[in-house]
Amino acid sequence: MALVVQKFGGSSVASADRIRRVAERIVETRKQGHDVVVVVSAMGDTTDELLDLAEQVAPAPPAREMDMLLTAGERISNALVAMAIHSLGAEARSFTGSQAGVITTGAHGKAKIIDVTPGRLRNALDEGQIVLVAGFQGVSQDTKDITTLGRGGSDTTAVALAAALEADVCEIYTDVDGVFTADPRIVSDAQRLDQVSFEEMLELAACGAKVLMLRCVEYARRYNIPIHVRSSYTDKRGTYVYGSMEDIAMEDAILTGVAHDRSEAKVTVVGLDDAPGYAAKVFRAVADAEINIDMVLQNISKVDTGKTDITFTLPKDDGPRAVAKLSSLQEEIGFSAVLYDDHIGKVSLVGAGMRSHPGVTATFCEALAQAGVNIELISTSEIRISVLCKDTELDDAVRALHKAFDLGGDEVAVVHAGTGR
Amino acid sequence: MALVVQKFGGSSVASADRIRRVAERIVETRKQGHDVVVVVSAMGDTTDELLDLAEQVAPAPPAREMDMLLTAGERISNALVAMAIHSLGAEARSFTGSQAGVITTGAHGKAKIIDVTPGRLRNALDEGQIVLVAGFQGVSQDTKDITTLGRGGSDTTAVALAAALEADVCEIYTDVDGVFTADPRIVSDAQRLDQVSFEEMLELAACGAKVLMLRCVEYARRYNIPIHVRSSYTDKRGTYVYGSMEDIAMEDAILTGVAHDRSEAKVTVVGLDDAPGYAAKVFRAVADAEINIDMVLQNISKVDTGKTDITFTLPKDDGPRAVAKLSSLQEEIGFSAVLYDDHIGKVSLVGAGMRSHPGVTATFCEALAQAGVNIELISTSEIRISVLCKDTELDDAVRALHKAFDLGGDEVAVVHAGTGR
Repeated sequence: MALVVQKFGGSSVASADRIRRVAERIVETRKQGHDVVVVVSAMGDTTDELLDLAEQVAPAPPAREMDMLLTAGERISNALVAMAIHSLGAEARSFTGSQAGVITTGAHGKAKIIDVTPGRLRNALDEGQIVLVAGFQGVSQDTKDITTLGRGGSDTTAVALAAALEADVCEIYTDVDGVFTADPRIVSDAQRLDQVSFEEMLELAACGAKVLMLRCVEYARRYNIPIHVRSSYTDKRGTYVYGSMEDIAMEDAILTGVAHDRSEAKVTVVGLDDAPGYAAKVFRAVADAEINIDMVLQNISKVDTGKTDITFTLPKDDGPRAVAKLSSLQEEIGFSAVLYDDHIGKVSLVGAGMRSHPGVTATFCEALAQAGVNIELISTSEIRISVLCKDTELDDAVRALHKAFDLGGDEVAVVHAGTGR
Repeated sequence: MALVVQKFGGSSVASADRIRRVAERIVETRKQGHDVVVVVSAMGDTTDELLDLAEQVAPAPPAREMDMLLTAGERISNALVAMAIHSLGAEARSFTGSQAGVITTGAHGKAKIIDVTPGRLRNALDEGQIVLVAGFQGVSQDTKDITTLGRGGSDTTAVALAAALEADVCEIYTDVDGVFTADPRIVSDAQRLDQVSFEEMLELAACGAKVLMLRCVEYARRYNIPIHVRSSYTDKRGTYVYGSMEDIAMEDAILTGVAHDRSEAKVTVVGLDDAPGYAAKVFRAVADAEINIDMVLQNISKVDTGKTDITFTLPKDDGPRAVAKLSSLQEEIGFSAVLYDDHIGKVSLVGAGMRSHPGVTATFCEALAQAGVNIELISTSEIRISVLCKDTELDDAVRALHKAFDLGGDEVAVVHAGTGR
């Protein structure tokens, strides 16, 4: 008998009918003799609808009140799933994040989990209950106010509960069949991966793969909780995320997949003095605006001018702010212009096999060249190669790399309607 | 400076626009220098929509989960009102019933308030905040589960908070201008009452007046909290409910109003032995089915048969159950039939003046006779006369009594769209 944590996203519970189907799956798992803890997101577009409503009522609402508002969504869906389970003859009880013992920082809208004290959940499980926990929320350690965890919060809740309860696995149900070698909507012969190590999944998530959020994978890795990413529409096995790439023997290591990302923009500071300290001033200015930088490129300085350019990428949403901040410091730091390009794409190849197979970078660049994709910036880690290109060339880049590294197969990928969360 | 508790019903906050208007009113009160605590019901038809959703998902859901579900409604509206207040430049914070210290019994769906420990509210008020509290909910003293208080729960929350915080007044905002001498939709010259004593309001509420729920008035009377029932659409003074009728000098006492009720049905047990104990068996059977009885009539026994009939009224919703229960005991108790009539109406005249003015009962019956209304059953208290009649004759009965006792006036009653709660 195992303890299984299952997470269902908004599209999985978008209607009364889907709620009943989810309940059937949960009860089936319980009938196999396992203890079951379920984390449910808000139904369908509820969260967005509540955000809309808030916007109609007031501009710039206090973050504390926004959290009070948004957490209503998960409350509703969890209570409904508990009711559906009950109507199938099993016992279930729903809990808010606070009741479940999810303790967080006080940062409304983007709280981080500090601790999980699942005493009430343990008691309910010991009584044979199926336990439902509202995802995406917790309670602030300091103020005792309700907090929400930001994007991907429900996945994080599920993994955090799995860690606190020492679960055997955390099943993340979504509307794709698992983690793929590339986005099946771009690459028609993309394959579902059977298994991915934590480090590789971290890279894939960091590089744009949306199936699992970075923070959730980090949490799972820290506590060594296997994640089973699978479809809520079928019974097929999905992708298991577990294990360290260190455990993968060098010879067996492979290249895992291609991720892409359209969410970044590129900023270039032109004509900066090529002397110690100037790059730091640029990055400090951006950091002061609380903006995270991803890739960085410092061009070779021009011998005749002694000036150089610095290019970096950041989330598109933060682009205008970064440009404004740098522009305001133009004289103080001393550069001639700030350029902004939000029509870029980032494509990444991820795989533990990169460490032991020389020539990967060469093949990578040749594939892109043959596809007519111009590389604007390269960044690498031990198990990842990322490049920036034009966003219009991104899909071609993904397909070219997928083919060049032979990641495709015969099984046709099925993509279900709706976007998982 | 006073401490004012204000309650706004679902129709008052049914849309983003109405929420903003309510916020303006609240901020205006605060600007006058008062401490303000506000109780808000769920927006518009939210509670009914959630009930519908639950019905689609599962029949007979567990009451605990129903409470988890329904309380989402008040959470949403309170957070939105707090946001609107904030956008007007004032400080506000919303609290759930649990956070506000509303401690209740464990009876989900119909919990009773045991105690209110408003420490967090006091602190917020001391910080100059406007406090929002979700109505209709509390937390169970024993299980720490969230509970809902049943119909009229938000009014009760407001009065309970007013009592615990020793407020100067509890303002109940609704979509009528106050308490009227009769339902303005039936009696065109019904007048708004300036003031009503607690006891008279209790009778009116018990006899069908829907503007305030019985339990809320009982609570106010026990803790001597004046209730100001007024319109959320205007600034006009409404009706003050306060004071004991004992304080009303005999000569000044008047007849206050006419209430009507279509929610009851009539059950007659025919051919019961007219001997000690048999009536008790009938009432015990109905009580065992957890059904409350209102009016009772035992007919004179027939001399030749030694049998008698017992008639009583009860809520329509409970009618079928009562009939089934009694029918199942027909042989055991010994009667010839159970008759059921759910086309009855109840009309009541209420007023402290009844005590000191002989002839009220006579005028009452004459007025109904002249209106062609047949009296099926009479029941009285010190300040109330109620009769049962056919439901088709009810409106005529209300108008006849209102006229006979000269309760009308010149001011035209205005009824606003929507049903207050």
